[in-house]
Amino acid sequence: MNKQEMKRLLALVAAGELSPEEAAAQVDAPDFADLGFARVDTRRQLRCGVTEVVYGEGKTAAQVTAICQALAEEGQPRVLVTRLAAEKARAVQEALPQALYWPDSRLLLTQPLPQPDGKGAIVVVCAGTSDLPVAEEAAITAEALGNKVERVYDAGVAGIHRLFSSADVLAQARVVIAVAGMEGALPSVVAGMVPCPVLAVPTSVGYGASLGGVAALLAMLNSCASGISVVNIDNGFGAAFQASLINHL
Amino acid sequence: MNKQEMKRLLALVAAGELSPEEAAAQVDAPDFADLGFARVDTRRQLRCGVTEVVYGEGKTAAQVTAICQALAEEGQPRVLVTRLAAEKARAVQEALPQALYWPDSRLLLTQPLPQPDGKGAIVVVCAGTSDLPVAEEAAITAEALGNKVERVYDAGVAGIHRLFSSADVLAQARVVIAVAGMEGALPSVVAGMVPCPVLAVPTSVGYGASLGGVAALLAMLNSCASGISVVNIDNGFGAAFQASLINHL
Amino acid sequence: MNKQEMKRLLALVAAGELSPEEAAAQVDAPDFADLGFARVDTRRQLRCGVTEVVYGEGKTAAQVTAICQALAEEGQPRVLVTRLAAEKARAVQEALPQALYWPDSRLLLTQPLPQPDGKGAIVVVCAGTSDLPVAEEAAITAEALGNKVERVYDAGVAGIHRLFSSADVLAQARVVIAVAGMEGALPSVVAGMVPCPVLAVPTSVGYGASLGGVAALLAMLNSCASGISVVNIDNGFGAAFQASLINHL
Amino acid sequence: MNKQEMKRLLALVAAGELSPEEAAAQVDAPDFADLGFARVDTRRQLRCGVTEVVYGEGKTAAQVTAICQALAEEGQPRVLVTRLAAEKARAVQEALPQALYWPDSRLLLTQPLPQPDGKGAIVVVCAGTSDLPVAEEAAITAEALGNKVERVYDAGVAGIHRLFSSADVLAQARVVIAVAGMEGALPSVVAGMVPCPVLAVPTSVGYGASLGGVAALLAMLNSCASGISVVNIDNGFGAAFQASLINHL
Amino acid sequence: MNKQEMKRLLALVAAGELSPEEAAAQVDAPDFADLGFARVDTRRQLRCGVTEVVYGEGKTAAQVTAICQALAEEGQPRVLVTRLAAEKARAVQEALPQALYWPDSRLLLTQPLPQPDGKGAIVVVCAGTSDLPVAEEAAITAEALGNKVERVYDAGVAGIHRLFSSADVLAQARVVIAVAGMEGALPSVVAGMVPCPVLAVPTSVGYGASLGGVAALLAMLNSCASGISVVNIDNGFGAAFQASLINHL
Amino acid sequence: MNKQEMKRLLALVAAGELSPEEAAAQVDAPDFADLGFARVDTRRQLRCGVTEVVYGEGKTAAQVTAICQALAEEGQPRVLVTRLAAEKARAVQEALPQALYWPDSRLLLTQPLPQPDGKGAIVVVCAGTSDLPVAEEAAITAEALGNKVERVYDAGVAGIHRLFSSADVLAQARVVIAVAGMEGALPSVVAGMVPCPVLAVPTSVGYGASLGGVAALLAMLNSCASGISVVNIDNGFGAAFQASLINHL
Amino acid sequence: MNKQEMKRLLALVAAGELSPEEAAAQVDAPDFADLGFARVDTRRQLRCGVTEVVYGEGKTAAQVTAICQALAEEGQPRVLVTRLAAEKARAVQEALPQALYWPDSRLLLTQPLPQPDGKGAIVVVCAGTSDLPVAEEAAITAEALGNKVERVYDAGVAGIHRLFSSADVLAQARVVIAVAGMEGALPSVVAGMVPCPVLAVPTSVGYGASLGGVAALLAMLNSCASGISVVNIDNGFGAAFQASLINHL
Amino acid sequence: MNKQEMKRLLALVAAGELSPEEAAAQVDAPDFADLGFARVDTRRQLRCGVTEVVYGEGKTAAQVTAICQALAEEGQPRVLVTRLAAEKARAVQEALPQALYWPDSRLLLTQPLPQPDGKGAIVVVCAGTSDLPVAEEAAITAEALGNKVERVYDAGVAGIHRLFSSADVLAQARVVIAVAGMEGALPSVVAGMVPCPVLAVPTSVGYGASLGGVAALLAMLNSCASGISVVNIDNGFGAAFQASLINHL
Repeated sequence: MNKQEMKRLLALVAAGELSPEEAAAQVDAPDFADLGFARVDTRRQLRCGVTEVVYGEGKTAAQVTAICQALAEEGQPRVLVTRLAAEKARAVQEALPQALYWPDSRLLLTQPLPQPDGKGAIVVVCAGTSDLPVAEEAAITAEALGNKVERVYDAGVAGIHRLFSSADVLAQARVVIAVAGMEGALPSVVAGMVPCPVLAVPTSVGYGASLGGVAALLAMLNSCASGISVVNIDNGFGAAFQASLINHL
Repeated sequence: MNKQEMKRLLALVAAGELSPEEAAAQVDAPDFADLGFARVDTRRQLRCGVTEVVYGEGKTAAQVTAICQALAEEGQPRVLVTRLAAEKARAVQEALPQALYWPDSRLLLTQPLPQPDGKGAIVVVCAGTSDLPVAEEAAITAEALGNKVERVYDAGVAGIHRLFSSADVLAQARVVIAVAGMEGALPSVVAGMVPCPVLAVPTSVGYGASLGGVAALLAMLNSCASGISVVNIDNGFGAAFQASLINHL
Repeated sequence: MNKQEMKRLLALVAAGELSPEEAAAQVDAPDFADLGFARVDTRRQLRCGVTEVVYGEGKTAAQVTAICQALAEEGQPRVLVTRLAAEKARAVQEALPQALYWPDSRLLLTQPLPQPDGKGAIVVVCAGTSDLPVAEEAAITAEALGNKVERVYDAGVAGIHRLFSSADVLAQARVVIAVAGMEGALPSVVAGMVPCPVLAVPTSVGYGASLGGVAALLAMLNSCASGISVVNIDNGFGAAFQASLINHL
Repeated sequence: MNKQEMKRLLALVAAGELSPEEAAAQVDAPDFADLGFARVDTRRQLRCGVTEVVYGEGKTAAQVTAICQALAEEGQPRVLVTRLAAEKARAVQEALPQALYWPDSRLLLTQPLPQPDGKGAIVVVCAGTSDLPVAEEAAITAEALGNKVERVYDAGVAGIHRLFSSADVLAQARVVIAVAGMEGALPSVVAGMVPCPVLAVPTSVGYGASLGGVAALLAMLNSCASGISVVNIDNGFGAAFQASLINHL
Repeated sequence: MNKQEMKRLLALVAAGELSPEEAAAQVDAPDFADLGFARVDTRRQLRCGVTEVVYGEGKTAAQVTAICQALAEEGQPRVLVTRLAAEKARAVQEALPQALYWPDSRLLLTQPLPQPDGKGAIVVVCAGTSDLPVAEEAAITAEALGNKVERVYDAGVAGIHRLFSSADVLAQARVVIAVAGMEGALPSVVAGMVPCPVLAVPTSVGYGASLGGVAALLAMLNSCASGISVVNIDNGFGAAFQASLINHL
Repeated sequence: MNKQEMKRLLALVAAGELSPEEAAAQVDAPDFADLGFARVDTRRQLRCGVTEVVYGEGKTAAQVTAICQALAEEGQPRVLVTRLAAEKARAVQEALPQALYWPDSRLLLTQPLPQPDGKGAIVVVCAGTSDLPVAEEAAITAEALGNKVERVYDAGVAGIHRLFSSADVLAQARVVIAVAGMEGALPSVVAGMVPCPVLAVPTSVGYGASLGGVAALLAMLNSCASGISVVNIDNGFGAAFQASLINHL
Repeated sequence: MNKQEMKRLLALVAAGELSPEEAAAQVDAPDFADLGFARVDTRRQLRCGVTEVVYGEGKTAAQVTAICQALAEEGQPRVLVTRLAAEKARAVQEALPQALYWPDSRLLLTQPLPQPDGKGAIVVVCAGTSDLPVAEEAAITAEALGNKVERVYDAGVAGIHRLFSSADVLAQARVVIAVAGMEGALPSVVAGMVPCPVLAVPTSVGYGASLGGVAALLAMLNSCASGISVVNIDNGFGAAFQASLINHL
Repeated sequence: MNKQEMKRLLALVAAGELSPEEAAAQVDAPDFADLGFARVDTRRQLRCGVTEVVYGEGKTAAQVTAICQALAEEGQPRVLVTRLAAEKARAVQEALPQALYWPDSRLLLTQPLPQPDGKGAIVVVCAGTSDLPVAEEAAITAEALGNKVERVYDAGVAGIHRLFSSADVLAQARVVIAVAGMEGALPSVVAGMVPCPVLAVPTSVGYGASLGGVAALLAMLNSCASGISVVNIDNGFGAAFQASLINHL
């Protein structure tokens, strides 16, 4: 346990979020839980403020379950799993019956959604109905990390009054997550409307020269508007994670 | 001279735009003027409705001058030259003193601008001040081809009220040319506002992941709005040429 | 309802295409129909001249049906749906029995094809038999939007006399849609033959270095012929929409 | 002036940052200052919280000067200009003698740096000495927007103890801006060390397969660490702008 | 048999690894075994020090079996087959019952693993659990070629203490193979920790802008750390083969 | 029928390959057979020396059959069909029982292979066993077009003595077709050994950074050896067609 | 000297092109002339039928001169140098006063052009005036290698009658070299007109999405016409070299 | 100073390469020398076995000099600087008069070349004369790091006997560095000839579809030969560094 981790541990004790006994247990615990196929980063919560999130793709249901259990044993029972196929999710839910699963966004959470403790609202706005799975990945991730979320869906720039009609909602955002495929223009327009940070999520919605979302990604990186940063294609999770960090500052 | 060309020639005579003598001369003329280094397409006006336009890049001033003179000899004295460097333009102007030159857009026209004879107005809208050279290439080309042109400049989507403030101008367009670099979002928004065709021109304005205008090009090709078609990067000429065809229908 | 929309509404009333009562109903109607998963742009007809077209990919049959019904309720019963898989189409047709479906081009239209009201003919020319699905998407879309369509199929440049044999048909076009995969040369040749605008549609027909249609797309963007603009790969719909706007000017 | 802008204006009056007279002047002012070549977005400060920043590339010194003066006339005398070449900067400084210029990062600010009013510190960490111009663009932009900035330079992952030796500085950050070229690994390591958002800036430092910074950009977009979002290659400004938004929440 | 091959043959006889009779047989043998569909390079062991390895993809089980038998007949009974699908492996195992098969890494070895005869240990370190198939391809290949292998798995840079906790293992390496997908940062960090060569293996783990592993590949090629060279995406075999060459020097 | 076609027709009569009656029939025949979905180029044999070849991909079995029958009716009964899936081939063979089909290379020929009438031999050399389908597409196409073919298979550059052992075969070639995937080095080595033209065929064999054959394609286009030209990835047919033209000169 | 080389040497003696003494000298000569910085392949003429051609780019004038002299000493005084800058050419001409230099195509030949000894004519056809430097590189190379050359310039597909007017010239070709930039459509049309092989040369003429000639290259690789093979961008030399091989068969 | 570094320090003392006093000084020294613009990694020699190498591009002569001096003060006076422009080198040499500079390969070494202490020879083989600067960067770097180097230059695959004539030299290599541009085939052939590791260096030599060396890079990554790993384009230094590590094992 390094100095920064120790400081944060003490802060949690001071804030009453951790009993001295729990804190002492953490001090003695190993840096990570070695499962052979995985080294579970049990100290990420202290170091980065959030429990390790499990990337479900390329892992078996048994591996996912074991990692969630290892984290639970270290006192971190609420674990988020991303990109988990439905059949694997069912197997995990058998071992962890409390777990919730959202098939469209392929998210699993090992415990019910927490009460929001972020400072404001995260607004998730998306361009088209086909972008919904990614938008929902963002929205549910944000809720799983303790944020209040507002949704503004199907508000693409080709009928821009649909976006303007939600100006009130956008105005109350502490962070906006803007999700769009095709030409990816939505974040540029949104960032010109709001005084808060905009996290842009390109999606793979489109065909031909959309190049699997690369067109939208490039558009967002080249936005003429200020206040935008970008995550990987279809990475609703990544945008929500950072939005949550911002919303908890 | 093929059947279609003959039909159009007769139509011009019938409309009084060509005397029978002029028409007869064209019937006897060769299909093209062979200058050795170039085969000047003297019959393009009949075939495609517009005198051949000269691509200035990669040609010497002497070559450009000779082509313009060959077209003049075939009764087509108003010739547009695109992408002509300033020093070459000066040399051409010495041989053809009537010629006008616009240094920003690198256009040369061997005779004064004609009176507009298109049916409506072409509106050229551009996203930022840095896009002006391409926007002007479009605007002047359109004027050189006989169109009334309205300009709406620096109306990018990051401050979209600047675009909306010109809604009246846009509403009167028969065709809109939308010019933008960076994320290339402008045509999508414009196409959602107007009931006429939008020709989108990506520019190479930007840096890094703009990839020399490829980002804007991809965005425009993937627009979620209908009624958009696209030309090559920085090809203000190409958009104006097609806009003029449409405006003269 | 903004000023432009009001103007167009009044023009429709003046032209007898709308009764004062219908117009009044539209003035009072909301800007869009919010279905939760979609914000149906009921005012696009007024704003852009054409009812919203539904992008079928990534939507469920129930979503498509609901959007079509929402538009019908706003007095726009003829709705075009693009890229709709056959099994979804069947489900939509059960709810909307009048709907027509074309399996090759994956188009659905909720009512019979309208009488043509465009000013001239749209000629759809394609390079090879394998390009037919895209060419048909263009042709049927154009018909669904009220245009007379002529088809010239399998007229690729490797046997160019096949194209020249249809010169008469091309000469009567008000707009040409040129569809080609592989090297995408067809639009360049066509644009050298006709005095009207050419809309170029690259297709994904080909293999290896065709890169899923990118080769044809690049070729069309770089055409040495004037009068061409380009839409996304396989986007027969987009070309036809633009052609229809032009044909109704 | 729309509803949101009005709300923010009143909030500024309530907070004593604006006198009622100044506020009234803003209500009556036009939406933007139209200079012909530019439509200066005088209302961006109200709408987005920050005065419009001027992109210097592709603009003449006279254009830059005129835009800065137009903003000053609307009560926004502190204007930041990015990517301004040295010779243009000299010309602007002649007209605006108070202006500061940083040649390495090509930034110009029309008035002295303000007192920091952000809530915490922004830490700018960069991988190598060759990344300094971009890192400085970020650092000075952040200072120009009212933030306290800490610099940790030449802390690339090939000698990772150099980064760890600054763990104390990083631990105090409210936002981290991580700047790196070549393989772009720095943000991934940093995000694993801190509990705050990390904004990643790829640079064009490198050669060959760095593809002008695309390699670093892709690496950052694909980071295995959570809490990262990315801006365009060499876009130190963009990262700092968003960091400042976050730091002022 | 060329001069170099003759020299090595004699060296093997001198070292007692080959009897004079066996050597004489090799001198008389043809340069390759021609099976019609394949020319089996029976002399590669002499020329390059290692028996030919069979690339299983695109070959039938019968072809693979025949090649292995041809090599056995030339006195090289231990043959490694890479990228062999499970059903093909079963068929090969029926013909060659001693053969071992590892389904995750799709490797088949026609005889049991040999005793290690390399000079030191090869350490295989990988970034995440999803990279295991490639890491195992490297580890088992190295073992099949006679090396002692140490595995350090799931030690990605987002929780870098997990890597540092294995510093002792890394310090004993004669060669390190570093396997990573996504942003591919692991080899840069490892190469900054060890004084031995690092062979970097990008994997196709990731999505969106990972471009099938190209992002990781580019990152590794652009590493700011010295002492790294790179093999093809997912090419665990290739890294292990070279590592084995180095370990046997 | 244009002048060149007439000349060639007369030459065939003079050579006794066509009776005056057959020639007269061709003079009167239409330029192409219009099947609605296809315009069969019945005059290509005269114009280009070879009957039209049918691209099977994207056509139904019924379309393929109809095209072959249309050509047969114009006196061209031996038709080659490329890239025809096995199930379609079976359907075609039911209608055209004489037709031969090669499943590996997906070629169909409506009549038995002809006697060779080319001037020399075409040598098809390929790098690895996995390249066989493409190599066979080349070899059988060449045979179908009347050429003697020699095959040199599995002669990749990693065991280059396997190639040198076939130097005698290569020395007798009038044209060489060199087929290779992966790094595509084979044509460079071959072209340095022979005094005849080399046609290079990149294949999609490989993985990761082979990018579906683009790596091999680029290598062949950049060969340091003279005397090489290149066809599309996996285009064994195209190389054989060109080789046959050369071999019949 | 290997067996093939010996055979060709004897054939030259039998044909009277080499005296027995000259042949004997070649038998004794070393395989290459080692100049330290270069290994001049003095035996390529025997092996591949043509003296080694010198690639001028990246070599000093002194190096070029020394290589030419080394070849002259081995009895091969006529050497072609490609891509040689004008100032280097002047220096070479001082040492080798007989040398000719063509500045547009950057070719140098150390002796006068030879008498044509190819069997027919090579026709070089190019699309536009801007393609002339590449077309001339092809034409002069072909002449330097002993071919009769016909030129058809500025015959692009946008005015296709200009190409058809040269049908007679094309009909007499034994090989056609088709040179085009931009969309690269010319070879497809030409290959549909002639019964001989077409070698396609893409040029870097164009801008924006021409991507430095990649658009034309891809178009040519994907040609729907048969009988085309392709060389590198701007590689007029390469096409002419292969055309000469074909023309001498 | 971590445990591994301490172990290596003690080993140096035990080997007599460091006096106890020198070792003690190092134990007390800081981890790096902080120059503000750079954190000089003074402990890399202990950690990775080689003194930090300075990347010259993007650094001023003053910065380079200061870094070299800082390393000298820590007892590491022999510093290699890569990619240093000639004018900067002159400035560095004024401050460090012992420094050697090689203009072609842009390398600077602050002290004379050391005596070789590697175990065998490193053979640098390159394909063409134009690749010499990169080959020399590799060769001189290897010498600067204490290796005996053999050079085999201009041995490209188009005249492969030139390579085979150096088979003796290659046979004595402990590591081979193979440098090639254009199609990058050389490493594949070399790796089929030798039993030692081959490090492949693609160069940017070529034009058009060589894409600045990407073609050669891809070829090398996809080599069909085993025993190859690859470094960045033009990265002769990187290959030599890795080769030196191997040669000192």
